[in-house]
Amino acid sequence: MKRLTLFFLALLAIKAYSQSIKVYPTNWWVDMKHNKIQLIIHQEDSTQVFPAKLTVRSSSPDFKIVKVHQPENPRYLFIDAEISATAKPQKVKLSLGGTTASAANTINYELKPRRSGKGTSYAQGVTSVDFMYLIMPDRFANGDPANDKIAGMKDHAFSRDSIYYRHGGDLQGVINHLDYLQELGVTAIWLNPVLENNMPRTSYHGYAFTDHYTIDPRFGGDTAYKRLINEMHKRGLKMVQDAVYNHVGTEHWFVKDQPTKDWLHQWPTYTNTTYKDQVLFDPYASKSDHKKMSDGWFVPSMPDLNQQNPYVANFLIQHALWTVEEFGIDGWRIDTYAYNDLEFMNRCNKALLDEYPKLTIFGETWVHGVPNQSYFVNNNYKIAYKSNQPGVTDFQALWGLQDAMTKDFGWTDGVNRLYTTLAQDFVYKDPMQNVIFMDNHDLSRFYSVVGEDLDKYKMSIGWLLTSRGVPQWYYGAEIGMKGLANPDGWVRLDFPGGWPGDKVNKFVKAGRTPREDSIFNYTKTLANYRKNASAIKTGKLMQFVPEDGVYTYFRYDNNQTVMVVMNTAKEEKTVDTKRFEERFSGFSKGKEITTGAIQELRTKWKLPAKGIWILELMK
Amino acid sequence: MKRLTLFFLALLAIKAYSQSIKVYPTNWWVDMKHNKIQLIIHQEDSTQVFPAKLTVRSSSPDFKIVKVHQPENPRYLFIDAEISATAKPQKVKLSLGGTTASAANTINYELKPRRSGKGTSYAQGVTSVDFMYLIMPDRFANGDPANDKIAGMKDHAFSRDSIYYRHGGDLQGVINHLDYLQELGVTAIWLNPVLENNMPRTSYHGYAFTDHYTIDPRFGGDTAYKRLINEMHKRGLKMVQDAVYNHVGTEHWFVKDQPTKDWLHQWPTYTNTTYKDQVLFDPYASKSDHKKMSDGWFVPSMPDLNQQNPYVANFLIQHALWTVEEFGIDGWRIDTYAYNDLEFMNRCNKALLDEYPKLTIFGETWVHGVPNQSYFVNNNYKIAYKSNQPGVTDFQALWGLQDAMTKDFGWTDGVNRLYTTLAQDFVYKDPMQNVIFMDNHDLSRFYSVVGEDLDKYKMSIGWLLTSRGVPQWYYGAEIGMKGLANPDGWVRLDFPGGWPGDKVNKFVKAGRTPREDSIFNYTKTLANYRKNASAIKTGKLMQFVPEDGVYTYFRYDNNQTVMVVMNTAKEEKTVDTKRFEERFSGFSKGKEITTGAIQELRTKWKLPAKGIWILELMK
Repeated sequence: MKRLTLFFLALLAIKAYSQSIKVYPTNWWVDMKHNKIQLIIHQEDSTQVFPAKLTVRSSSPDFKIVKVHQPENPRYLFIDAEISATAKPQKVKLSLGGTTASAANTINYELKPRRSGKGTSYAQGVTSVDFMYLIMPDRFANGDPANDKIAGMKDHAFSRDSIYYRHGGDLQGVINHLDYLQELGVTAIWLNPVLENNMPRTSYHGYAFTDHYTIDPRFGGDTAYKRLINEMHKRGLKMVQDAVYNHVGTEHWFVKDQPTKDWLHQWPTYTNTTYKDQVLFDPYASKSDHKKMSDGWFVPSMPDLNQQNPYVANFLIQHALWTVEEFGIDGWRIDTYAYNDLEFMNRCNKALLDEYPKLTIFGETWVHGVPNQSYFVNNNYKIAYKSNQPGVTDFQALWGLQDAMTKDFGWTDGVNRLYTTLAQDFVYKDPMQNVIFMDNHDLSRFYSVVGEDLDKYKMSIGWLLTSRGVPQWYYGAEIGMKGLANPDGWVRLDFPGGWPGDKVNKFVKAGRTPREDSIFNYTKTLANYRKNASAIKTGKLMQFVPEDGVYTYFRYDNNQTVMVVMNTAKEEKTVDTKRFEERFSGFSKGKEITTGAIQELRTKWKLPAKGIWILELMK
Repeated sequence: MKRLTLFFLALLAIKAYSQSIKVYPTNWWVDMKHNKIQLIIHQEDSTQVFPAKLTVRSSSPDFKIVKVHQPENPRYLFIDAEISATAKPQKVKLSLGGTTASAANTINYELKPRRSGKGTSYAQGVTSVDFMYLIMPDRFANGDPANDKIAGMKDHAFSRDSIYYRHGGDLQGVINHLDYLQELGVTAIWLNPVLENNMPRTSYHGYAFTDHYTIDPRFGGDTAYKRLINEMHKRGLKMVQDAVYNHVGTEHWFVKDQPTKDWLHQWPTYTNTTYKDQVLFDPYASKSDHKKMSDGWFVPSMPDLNQQNPYVANFLIQHALWTVEEFGIDGWRIDTYAYNDLEFMNRCNKALLDEYPKLTIFGETWVHGVPNQSYFVNNNYKIAYKSNQPGVTDFQALWGLQDAMTKDFGWTDGVNRLYTTLAQDFVYKDPMQNVIFMDNHDLSRFYSVVGEDLDKYKMSIGWLLTSRGVPQWYYGAEIGMKGLANPDGWVRLDFPGGWPGDKVNKFVKAGRTPREDSIFNYTKTLANYRKNASAIKTGKLMQFVPEDGVYTYFRYDNNQTVMVVMNTAKEEKTVDTKRFEERFSGFSKGKEITTGAIQELRTKWKLPAKGIWILELMK
């Protein structure tokens, strides 16, 4: 009986159902390596369903229908298709359910020509030659007040008075300040996610996608995103997109109308992840702990995707590929890396790197311990699970930096923790791909971490811009923005001057206090010096055992040697340079990059308390 | 002129020089895999030298002289010899310098028959089935007051009133207490070194060898050592010798009369090691830091051997082999592992394991960090230097245990540190070979570390005797001996009752306070239970993410399951056992090993503050 009803419903439906049908990916390209795609066809009209045993025909021999899957939810079809190697750009018509095409049951699907310049004008990779600036788009600058509120969207809480509400920042705001960022020395931008977050509450942060194929209109939508990226590429700047594979928002269309019962990780009662990454590599972990970690939800408002469901996996992988090609992304940051299915992650990374070999990928690894962190990246372990991820957000280096700046020098403490963390780099395949940072949108701002101590802060900046890896910056750090991470909104305050009518504008010198300007200039000097410093960008590192709170390292290649001496102690220290002779060959002096002061190399130095010298060595 | 003089001196000398000649190794064996040996011939009479171009003839076709090396010190010869595979036990005569043998220039060298029972009655290996008891021989029991002072030896400071002086403990003292140790559940003994330490000061600790081939007469010499080992083997106990390859005492014969200029690591001025293991694996280490760490001296009184000198290396390797065969050692503990030349260590370990495949080896790795520690042992890294060492002293587990007992529960602190350290075991090839411990002769006694808190102490003992690895005990821990490690002598106090006339004797129940007896009994119960507990001895480990200070793990195999629940919190905790269902299959109850109390498994438990339950699961 039921089946019969469905059948008649379907017959009724078939006449017009293409009107309310969505297809994902929304288009594809010719000449892609990834030419076997899987379309998700979603009938958005909840009164309509696809009939059972539906047939699908393609209008083009270049677009071959391989298989049609009909999951338990009759409003979905999954279509496996293969695009021929010789296909030209074209619009394909897919006829559903009938033998002849008609407007009512036809879907138009476009195969576009590819973007040109892969690896040179997009998918370029963000590496240690770059200086990457992280922006939370809602909180940086409001370039287009017209898009602050979008009719019909669910989050009506718009007020700069609350850290939980939307503030109106947008992509035009970023475009408006590209000159500023370039003045500072920035070469790449990482934006917190810009995809649609049509959530009823705290939608500003961007991590709860409700549609993968729409850029949030409150940020300016696809148009603004493309405009921003084009403008960046014109200036030689690179774009990093923030990918979230692990979860989506509760308002996502495929959560509200789930294609299969196992689309999401479902639990008898709400179950949060334990956030305990250990269970993923612990040889002694229980299955139940593993499941809770991987399949538990990150937070109640963000359902956990079941990446072991092949349709989910294909959807996510194709979206990643689609994004790079559609927008011309250069780098890829992966949110909550350890919470994803790790086999899925390897498949996904591989698909991206197969298509875009120069693209860089770095996952968030907010964990404790080098063994923990290195498990999630290309490493030197001979173990069953081998991650293929190129880089990680180097939280271990951050813990080292934090200790260096806030704890007394001890056998394992203070700057010795930073030193020993880097010494453990032998476990990584390529630690130069690790992203180093002082803070980000989840962490206390480092200026607050060091108790607003200008000397310590500059020393940290000096380290960040000369150590190994890809330096990442958080917006506003250059003017010493403050804030502790609990609650996290306090580290996501507006950049002063980013809004029309702001009383002060710290994007310009006149708006900055002398202290702020001093931080800005220190950063700017180093970041711009770095642009032409091959030793720092791609050279080797040599570090010496810290003594008495003083940590010394060199960056060097055949053309240049840069020596960095950090005195983390509260007192002036005398440094006998004899022990560094190994790197002094051919040099007699060093020029401090930020002050221009010249130091004789072979002598004893009086290094001021909390002082850093960054010396380019000279004959 | 000079050469001519030497020649005549030599001619003079040759007549009688065998009188004052020493040969090392002092003997060898037939039927050894290691049948190519290198003898060091030392003329101890400083007025005599060997003539240049000396010839050496062997009286036996089974003992072939391959090559004679004459180093710059003319009082030394190195002779490469090869023992034939078919050689019978025999006494070989080596004629030096002449064509015919005469008493005056002949050295007798014995090829002994091998000890029988390799791998079953000696060289058996000390593994996770064992409970290993560490004794500092001078401080445990004085079984033979006649050897307290030996005429002619340099250390005259004999007084039990000073932690730096000799106290008179000896090997007979150990023999006298084997019953006691067996009652406690001990199955293996590791002695701090027993080789001759004829040093003028603080000779008691044993780490400054002055002759590798002599057991210190103040411990009873070779005779007592052999008696002890034979008695142990009769009882099924195993012996671990403490090997020191890195350094010797300043009074060693080959320090006072150095065979070659590069026998020791020499520095323009005294140079201590930095104790910074990082430089050994740090991809960014400087050569100078590496050299200082490896070649700097451990302390001024212990010269650092140059193991890259092949004669030094051969001497040490042969002594190791000789020791196992001569005394019937079962396990091998290596002092200051990281300070040795690591290529040498691999050669040395290989020689021992080639000859004695069941022998176990574990090196001291007093370092901080699992990456650091694992570098020195069989591991899962694909890196240039691959250690072949089977086990290490697991200081990382100790730091975890210390935090578990002394720090509040936090994300990475308290018992979470212990948990996460074990979770990092994926980097080891076989973590079951790691030696776990609460303390040793260099560390604060754990009873003092936990502030003499009986509950915490018992919990630690419970952990030690049920976790993965080889449990190691430090003498007196079973009666709660106290002491902080600075200065180290305070953790090397005499075992009360070990000396004739001691007012109390804590080797017997009557001498122990109720508190001491309670510790003794707790240890004894668990150690003896362990002897027949296959799950603990060789079973698998499963650990669960700690919650609220409560850490739960299982040891299990096909025959047995033991569940351990540790409440490290200061308050009683309720434990919902539902999450452990994965290991409950087939069981309904658990019997606590030390109290006999029965617990229903599928219920909520009230676990007392600082309480541990060790439950054998039952139907």
